[in-house]
Amino acid sequence: MKCLSCREDYNAYVAGTCKVCYEEASETEEALKQEIEDLKAKVTFLRFWSPLDHNHRSTAVPGLPYTDVVLLASDGPKDLPPVPVPAHKAVLVSRSPVFKAMLENEMEESRSSTIKISDVSYEVLLAFINYLYTAEATLDEQMAYDLVVFAEKYQVKHLKAYCEKFLVSKLNWDNSVMSYAFAHQQNAKLVGDAALSLITDNMDKLTKREEYVELVERDPRLVVEIYEAYLAKQVNTAVHKDSSMKPQSNPVSMFYGGDTCAAEGEGGGE
Amino acid sequence: MKCLSCREDYNAYVAGTCKVCYEEASETEEALKQEIEDLKAKVTFLRFWSPLDHNHRSTAVPGLPYTDVVLLASDGPKDLPPVPVPAHKAVLVSRSPVFKAMLENEMEESRSSTIKISDVSYEVLLAFINYLYTAEATLDEQMAYDLVVFAEKYQVKHLKAYCEKFLVSKLNWDNSVMSYAFAHQQNAKLVGDAALSLITDNMDKLTKREEYVELVERDPRLVVEIYEAYLAKQVNTAVHKDSSMKPQSNPVSMFYGGDTCAAEGEGGGE
Repeated sequence: MKCLSCREDYNAYVAGTCKVCYEEASETEEALKQEIEDLKAKVTFLRFWSPLDHNHRSTAVPGLPYTDVVLLASDGPKDLPPVPVPAHKAVLVSRSPVFKAMLENEMEESRSSTIKISDVSYEVLLAFINYLYTAEATLDEQMAYDLVVFAEKYQVKHLKAYCEKFLVSKLNWDNSVMSYAFAHQQNAKLVGDAALSLITDNMDKLTKREEYVELVERDPRLVVEIYEAYLAKQVNTAVHKDSSMKPQSNPVSMFYGGDTCAAEGEGGGE
Repeated sequence: MKCLSCREDYNAYVAGTCKVCYEEASETEEALKQEIEDLKAKVTFLRFWSPLDHNHRSTAVPGLPYTDVVLLASDGPKDLPPVPVPAHKAVLVSRSPVFKAMLENEMEESRSSTIKISDVSYEVLLAFINYLYTAEATLDEQMAYDLVVFAEKYQVKHLKAYCEKFLVSKLNWDNSVMSYAFAHQQNAKLVGDAALSLITDNMDKLTKREEYVELVERDPRLVVEIYEAYLAKQVNTAVHKDSSMKPQSNPVSMFYGGDTCAAEGEGGGE
């Protein structure tokens, strides 16, 4: 018979769904796509102007309207005054509990309308503030690392998760040890777990790496955690191998059983 | 063979998809659900505090931080002063082009920090302002009608669409003529089209309705549009009937042809 989706003929061995379930699944997909459209419209409505459109070092463009605070990055060129990044206290306070505490607790920042931010470049500060208004950032690896640090410092979880996802997608053997150490420092669990998994898959090559030798020197406890994770993985794999070596009572399930269960779990006609 | 989704047996006549397409569709569904989760998190991040949590007639709760404007509804109890609804000019300006023009063009409102809003109750004003911060509103029919008027006046398209969808879901024969007239007045195309379609499906009952008689009196051109839509529908139906009466060259497609095409359009394995 013919598959309604790919139009190819298929037989009972590779049967998927009946027509009713296929149509239900199509309807579910349509409904999910509609929900995505609705949510995207909501995001567009809720996001503010992008401060990026209003902040330029050289050209004179009108600033954000009704700002009541400016932020200054400390790490700029030494011979130039820092470029102010204007913002709204209401936005800072609503997005970051650290800014909230800073501005509400009668600190220097709450009396003046200037907040000096140390250890950050103008570019990173601007990207950070922009994210608070738009939930968007243009990332490369360096910017993502910088923003994770900033997001951790100012407790902006959404930004941190956003950058961590990006960094996980860029993980490879070459940056894995560095990423692992970084993640530990910044409490970045997503990156840390992914890097640890990559490292423990390549233990035979680990000890030859320069970053490994440095890490043993700098933070040996972190290296111990790598070995502990490796050990746990070995035990797990052994248990798994052991159980999969047992004879199957139903030979068909060796080919279809696993797949079918997985597909069931991912759920068609909900 | 067995359907992987409902676990029922099916035969070639009610075949849906092959196993590969079924699994692809399941993956697509998972991916769409993940995208929905991500967008919901983004909405949560971008929405402000709800002004509803900060505005109460009776109890003294802390207001929104760093507000720079208050709005006053004119339609309150005569013997009481209006309750101020505090807000941020930055939010008003970013959400409504009318507030933008009002505040930027050196009108009375831009100099003072009070904006008086005529023809609106405190409850509707508060719901409106709350929507600007959260993209959410608790609706009943009256509130939805009131907010459509407000959204049209202040050109907040997202709110207008939100309320129109709600009103369409509440459409019935009893409120159809009233909704149709309202939609015309407020330029609410979604409600207008849905109401018109409902009315033209029930033309035999129309002229007996009180609202119809009133509408002929008040705005006869609107009634003419109903008759024109009815006429167009009749012509369409006649054409459709005519073509469906022709003999089918392939009798199977009478039962499956139409359905299959529709299901194809809704797209499975994208």
